[in-house]
Amino acid sequence: MTDDAAESLIDRALRNVRVGWRDIARATPILRAGATRPDLPEGDADDIRRQMSECLEGRGGEVSARARAAALGETYLGLNRTGRKRFLKILAHDFDADNAAVEAAARGLTEADGAAARKTALVALRKAVESPRTRLLTQFNGLPEGVKFLVDLRAELRNFVGDDADLRGLERDLKGLLTSWFDVGFLDLRRITWDSPAALLEKLIAYESVHEIESWDDLKNRLGPDRRFFAFFHNRMPNEPLIFVEVALVDKVSTNVQQLLDEEAPVIDAESARAAIFYSISNAQKGLAGISFGSFLIKRVVDQLANEFGGVRIFATLSPIPGFMTWLGEAAEDLDSVLDGSDRDALRKAGQEIASADQLIDLLSSGGWHDEKPLAKALKRPLTRACARYLLHAKQHQGRARDRVANFHLNNGARVEALNWLADTSAKGMAQSAGMMVNYLYRLDRIESNHEAYRGKAEIAAASALRSLAKD
Amino acid sequence: MTDDAAESLIDRALRNVRVGWRDIARATPILRAGATRPDLPEGDADDIRRQMSECLEGRGGEVSARARAAALGETYLGLNRTGRKRFLKILAHDFDADNAAVEAAARGLTEADGAAARKTALVALRKAVESPRTRLLTQFNGLPEGVKFLVDLRAELRNFVGDDADLRGLERDLKGLLTSWFDVGFLDLRRITWDSPAALLEKLIAYESVHEIESWDDLKNRLGPDRRFFAFFHNRMPNEPLIFVEVALVDKVSTNVQQLLDEEAPVIDAESARAAIFYSISNAQKGLAGISFGSFLIKRVVDQLANEFGGVRIFATLSPIPGFMTWLGEAAEDLDSVLDGSDRDALRKAGQEIASADQLIDLLSSGGWHDEKPLAKALKRPLTRACARYLLHAKQHQGRARDRVANFHLNNGARVEALNWLADTSAKGMAQSAGMMVNYLYRLDRIESNHEAYRGKAEIAAASALRSLAKD
Amino acid sequence: MTDDAAESLIDRALRNVRVGWRDIARATPILRAGATRPDLPEGDADDIRRQMSECLEGRGGEVSARARAAALGETYLGLNRTGRKRFLKILAHDFDADNAAVEAAARGLTEADGAAARKTALVALRKAVESPRTRLLTQFNGLPEGVKFLVDLRAELRNFVGDDADLRGLERDLKGLLTSWFDVGFLDLRRITWDSPAALLEKLIAYESVHEIESWDDLKNRLGPDRRFFAFFHNRMPNEPLIFVEVALVDKVSTNVQQLLDEEAPVIDAESARAAIFYSISNAQKGLAGISFGSFLIKRVVDQLANEFGGVRIFATLSPIPGFMTWLGEAAEDLDSVLDGSDRDALRKAGQEIASADQLIDLLSSGGWHDEKPLAKALKRPLTRACARYLLHAKQHQGRARDRVANFHLNNGARVEALNWLADTSAKGMAQSAGMMVNYLYRLDRIESNHEAYRGKAEIAAASALRSLAKD
Amino acid sequence: MTDDAAESLIDRALRNVRVGWRDIARATPILRAGATRPDLPEGDADDIRRQMSECLEGRGGEVSARARAAALGETYLGLNRTGRKRFLKILAHDFDADNAAVEAAARGLTEADGAAARKTALVALRKAVESPRTRLLTQFNGLPEGVKFLVDLRAELRNFVGDDADLRGLERDLKGLLTSWFDVGFLDLRRITWDSPAALLEKLIAYESVHEIESWDDLKNRLGPDRRFFAFFHNRMPNEPLIFVEVALVDKVSTNVQQLLDEEAPVIDAESARAAIFYSISNAQKGLAGISFGSFLIKRVVDQLANEFGGVRIFATLSPIPGFMTWLGEAAEDLDSVLDGSDRDALRKAGQEIASADQLIDLLSSGGWHDEKPLAKALKRPLTRACARYLLHAKQHQGRARDRVANFHLNNGARVEALNWLADTSAKGMAQSAGMMVNYLYRLDRIESNHEAYRGKAEIAAASALRSLAKD
Repeated sequence: MTDDAAESLIDRALRNVRVGWRDIARATPILRAGATRPDLPEGDADDIRRQMSECLEGRGGEVSARARAAALGETYLGLNRTGRKRFLKILAHDFDADNAAVEAAARGLTEADGAAARKTALVALRKAVESPRTRLLTQFNGLPEGVKFLVDLRAELRNFVGDDADLRGLERDLKGLLTSWFDVGFLDLRRITWDSPAALLEKLIAYESVHEIESWDDLKNRLGPDRRFFAFFHNRMPNEPLIFVEVALVDKVSTNVQQLLDEEAPVIDAESARAAIFYSISNAQKGLAGISFGSFLIKRVVDQLANEFGGVRIFATLSPIPGFMTWLGEAAEDLDSVLDGSDRDALRKAGQEIASADQLIDLLSSGGWHDEKPLAKALKRPLTRACARYLLHAKQHQGRARDRVANFHLNNGARVEALNWLADTSAKGMAQSAGMMVNYLYRLDRIESNHEAYRGKAEIAAASALRSLAKD
Repeated sequence: MTDDAAESLIDRALRNVRVGWRDIARATPILRAGATRPDLPEGDADDIRRQMSECLEGRGGEVSARARAAALGETYLGLNRTGRKRFLKILAHDFDADNAAVEAAARGLTEADGAAARKTALVALRKAVESPRTRLLTQFNGLPEGVKFLVDLRAELRNFVGDDADLRGLERDLKGLLTSWFDVGFLDLRRITWDSPAALLEKLIAYESVHEIESWDDLKNRLGPDRRFFAFFHNRMPNEPLIFVEVALVDKVSTNVQQLLDEEAPVIDAESARAAIFYSISNAQKGLAGISFGSFLIKRVVDQLANEFGGVRIFATLSPIPGFMTWLGEAAEDLDSVLDGSDRDALRKAGQEIASADQLIDLLSSGGWHDEKPLAKALKRPLTRACARYLLHAKQHQGRARDRVANFHLNNGARVEALNWLADTSAKGMAQSAGMMVNYLYRLDRIESNHEAYRGKAEIAAASALRSLAKD
Repeated sequence: MTDDAAESLIDRALRNVRVGWRDIARATPILRAGATRPDLPEGDADDIRRQMSECLEGRGGEVSARARAAALGETYLGLNRTGRKRFLKILAHDFDADNAAVEAAARGLTEADGAAARKTALVALRKAVESPRTRLLTQFNGLPEGVKFLVDLRAELRNFVGDDADLRGLERDLKGLLTSWFDVGFLDLRRITWDSPAALLEKLIAYESVHEIESWDDLKNRLGPDRRFFAFFHNRMPNEPLIFVEVALVDKVSTNVQQLLDEEAPVIDAESARAAIFYSISNAQKGLAGISFGSFLIKRVVDQLANEFGGVRIFATLSPIPGFMTWLGEAAEDLDSVLDGSDRDALRKAGQEIASADQLIDLLSSGGWHDEKPLAKALKRPLTRACARYLLHAKQHQGRARDRVANFHLNNGARVEALNWLADTSAKGMAQSAGMMVNYLYRLDRIESNHEAYRGKAEIAAASALRSLAKD
Repeated sequence: MTDDAAESLIDRALRNVRVGWRDIARATPILRAGATRPDLPEGDADDIRRQMSECLEGRGGEVSARARAAALGETYLGLNRTGRKRFLKILAHDFDADNAAVEAAARGLTEADGAAARKTALVALRKAVESPRTRLLTQFNGLPEGVKFLVDLRAELRNFVGDDADLRGLERDLKGLLTSWFDVGFLDLRRITWDSPAALLEKLIAYESVHEIESWDDLKNRLGPDRRFFAFFHNRMPNEPLIFVEVALVDKVSTNVQQLLDEEAPVIDAESARAAIFYSISNAQKGLAGISFGSFLIKRVVDQLANEFGGVRIFATLSPIPGFMTWLGEAAEDLDSVLDGSDRDALRKAGQEIASADQLIDLLSSGGWHDEKPLAKALKRPLTRACARYLLHAKQHQGRARDRVANFHLNNGARVEALNWLADTSAKGMAQSAGMMVNYLYRLDRIESNHEAYRGKAEIAAASALRSLAKD
């Protein structure tokens, strides 16, 4: 399923939500309709402002509040892109914390005399910094599909933000709200199987972002007896996976993802498996970007598998290296650092004379080089060496690994275990990492020390073979 | 079931929790044991401080964090009353927001120049006012029974607070946390029936605080076919009711609670009912004191009953008047305002000469006067008149009704409908309201306007007969 | 999905069953292995006989009996087609009721003197006619998947029966057993939706036998908001539909099945629907052939829809006419009865000279005539007239309608309502009924009288337009 | 709860059923009302006969059949005891198998010539011996609570049967029907806990027949963490236990039932238990008398506990000896066989001169002897010896143990393990077995051989100490 298909899935769901909310709003006849013109021209904006204010005044108690939120949400859903951006801008700008009040409270604190007075002033300050817009957004949580609405609203908002300081503030407030609601302590880990609802499985097909699910048969294969598929859920979005991970139970560490995904491959007896390979992790909700569950998910799944399968001793990933080719394009500016003399000789023999970074990148981009055996052979040494260097030494701010997948697993306490040549020869795999993939190894007794060393001293744990390769 | 029995119920549950947490903590062998002496002498306090710090440092990622929280919680549960108070004091005092940082951020804001700088300063200030102790408490939400633990912790903490500013601050933080988690939008309304788990029903027996449930047969009667019993639940405390309401489906508005609770009374066909009487509302969690769900519960239940039973047109309560006798004791200082000449004559004929407030109160406190018909008859006029005045005119701060039950229903938009003589002749009923009870009426089309009038203008909606009685 | 795919689905399931049963059998170590050669040569047959006898002796109580049944079933599943037929033959022949005992009991009854003696003799006779093979088969009901095994066993057995009297007797016994277990009183009606397990939906794709489900999207369309999909289930085969029916909620009676199945067709609001069209009914279990649920299913679904959708007043089918073309081939031997002079003229103008039954049938079989407008127009009158006659007058034994679908609905109390020209232009629809389909109408207040008239007097209820057409 | 309470529970349930059935019947307006006078006088009997006939004719298909059955059942439930007996008599007598048809079919078989003809005749005979009354009863299975109705009907019928041959025949047919429906293969084993519905637990209180459950606290104790409580259920009576067993997890074999039931006794950690003691097994449905599940239940529970608790090595009962005192009354006619010289001496010293069976029985019946230590001491030797003899040597028909509980466990393959002195000093325990109880031991590896020896050779397995005691 394409992005478009996934969008239309959401669209249809939201249309139903809107109808449901209209019913809720109509049950409280005092509510006047909000704006109806889809691009929310300035004349209608005042209506919206009034509607928002009324939501906050809380007249008529909490049940009416629910109806008001439904009416406001329904209005939002009826707007087009322009209208929605205006709507959010009003909410962001007109319902931020009251500047004067905050400053007064801040002054109150700096001028407070004595511990008791300071404490009282702090309480007042805390109250003053809370924004009305956050309180307003909170009211949606009690509506059917209301939490999902806020998640999707944030996804939309992130597209609108740009460098608008108001919208950025609103986005931060909403993120804060969602962060507290989606605390990992509130999430449920559920195994997904071929007995799960088709409506849920359809979403997995739409949301998978690492190795696309090409058909229902492909999905069924990933849910087979020698596979495990887990996702986190939140009880207010019970039919929406937040993040999911796909695991293969195998004899030994997997080195090729096409083999893993081959529907014709024989099924092994899960009871005899010795290794669990995490071969895909996808975030499913754009509106929860930056709120991290991945680390927790992997460790919970490792725990569960270790309990269920006594024979499984190895927990590792088969991971993409999304940033390698981009990095290589930069690194190859100093071509000698990438190709030494013997590499060039080997390439020449395979019919390729490489004299510049551009030539190298052109060659690698030209698809299909991996089918030419002599050429592939000549490229293996320089590319795996470069990739080992990339993974072990390329850094971004604060000593973090430059590759975002590497950074994720290293931060979780894994180590870089092995590099796999021609492990993902799909177009995407060739384009991002010249077909290479990497195994990250999770050793339960090393997770904490690896994590500490990485966070504290920017030390990257790696197998010695990889270290040697990088030094080569 | 007595309070003691309810406490022991909780105690036993907590003992199990503690064992479970110990197991979680032990699975992470790096954790050193915390304090073990139950009263937490000063020597052990440093260990606790260190344990708390480590929880906050988040070393080892979220899974370790969970184990640390479990170990810390287990330590707490192993302490006695003295130890627990010390534990909380450490948490409150040593892990509050950093004063200096808050002041700096506050100063940063007051000195910020321009809108953009102010926004940045506001973000920094918001971060600074968050207390570490709140973050630490949050970590319990992921533990089994962790949310219930925090709720019970707050119940305990409220007993300790006194005028300790630190503990009061901690209590406020915890209340804030629970308020966001227990937002009504996150609660589930569930009907409770005789088919509900005995373990749940047992808790209702323990928690009912208006009209005590005397036996399983009494409870079964309250769950009969002409009754409805609803409670709010939170998905992280699935077996713990938060608040519950008991409703009788009847032909006409009930005027006597003993009749309602009579197990021998005939069962009516719910389909033919014309009125739904809310005769008991109990908060079940002391640790959620001050976080209000009652209003929302009543309206949700009214909605649900209106949908299910088309014939039910009247929604009303049969409510206690908990503050009447206390108020009467004060009001009767001016005896003439309570008893006029004809009242005294009537009383004299019934053999009672009342010359002072004390005499009146003594008479009413002497139990059993309601069985003496002439005396009861003589008391009816002055007491109902006084009670009408109490309900309609006795105010507390901001024009709120002095009676807390009256205030609750008036704030919800109900009106005072009728006063019922000898409606609750239990010892408790006689002692708090001379046996009188009151009906509050919920008319769906008046709820909002009643609420507005009460909140805005301190106007109390009441039936005209009651108004006349109060003016009498 | 093809028949082969469906078979392989069953095969894989049975392989798992076999492994499970082996485990059960092995837990009782006294059991000796049965035959192991897959074609069950005569030498192994005695082992099987012995195994069957031991099952019946019931040594070691019911738990051992379960293990013995598992071992015997596992043996069966390990055999090939030849072996299985031999296995069933042994069971049928060697474990039938004891002839001599039955005859003795029969004689006992004919010779009994007096009412009491006759009753005693009857009891003895009833016991004697029960066959051991039935008792043996019963023992499978307690095994996991045991009931499904017996259903599939009967499907297999029906292929083997031929004119073998023993196997026919065994088949009848097994049918009797399944008939009592699958009494409609024991079945559960469940609605199937897009939220149902994928593993279940996959089976519907395999089992649909009227209008093939071509893809998951096709299925999803049939589960859309303006559709209903119901199936009967048995609690010992909870994941296996027994029979299912597909219903479209529409504005008016449907006259074309391709329109109904069009995935691009707009979805209507089910609440506004005025008619419910039953457009497909499929039996899912070959092993339950001859055990009828269809009538009960339709009436239960009509009841349920009538309750759910007050606006739906019309319940009708859009049904195939599977026997029309075969009948027409026979009827057209007397060509004048099918084509009158004006029909021939019209056909001649459309370029077709029809002089014999064979020519007519050849023309109709030649696919694609329906796209030639003049030809199709010329054929409409004679074909619809012939079809009306077929439905209303073609009879089989006992006055039943010759068309099996017609017989099913007429027996249920429906009436023949309307004939639809070019209503199913799929290859199958053209081949079996020249593209025509028929609506059967279920009027709740006529069902009983229609049924009685059909069963008692062979009267077929039909709309007057159809009667006229048939008489034309 | 008393028998009366249990009856009234059923009565109330049946009243609801009757109302439900009336609704079903009324939905089919063609049905005429049956008899309405509660004692069913002869004039109304014809109406009933007609109603029954119409049920069997099956006019209007299966849905109407359901309505007819509901109407007939409603009529039955409206009758009093006299009327119900008449109703059943009509059903039994007028709807038995047709005598003439059976005889003709029997003759057909005896006269059949050749194997094929015999098979055909057998099929015809099988059909002829089926009684219409059985088919009619079957129709109730599809009604709500219909299966429970038939079970209760049989309980009632068993009270009516006496020596009425018709009713006995009907009872046998109904038993046959229920036997096939309640085959152990169709039953579900469910664990019952304090989290089970109160409505279910209430029934356990009513149905327990070995050691009465005296209160909800008593029941809660039996559902504690060191206890297990299992029952069999049938999916058409999901809220009705069929049979249940209570198990205590203990350190060593229990020898006293009052200790087991003591609510104040300390709870042990189930994980450390070494023995599982089955201390109560109760059949819950009088209408399923003679259809045995007990053996299967014990073995299933043993299996489940063996899986759950690796440390439990001993599975044994603590069982009553219901027939001992009755047997002793007979055996003591030969007083010397019960009391030898030294027994009499000891009794004399304890102040009791026993010269006849009557004196002995009087003494034992006089309640409270067990509190007199010297007397109890003097009685221990002769009573335990007599009891050992009773259990090991007292036989009924076919070599079965005379004690019905002993026969049940021996037939299951258990052995008599130990006799416990003053193990049940309740009034019931003293009256039936002079306070003694017995342990039966289930050794998994001996169950089959014990069962065979008991069934085949009437050999009773027993511990050697008991054998010695019996020989003493």
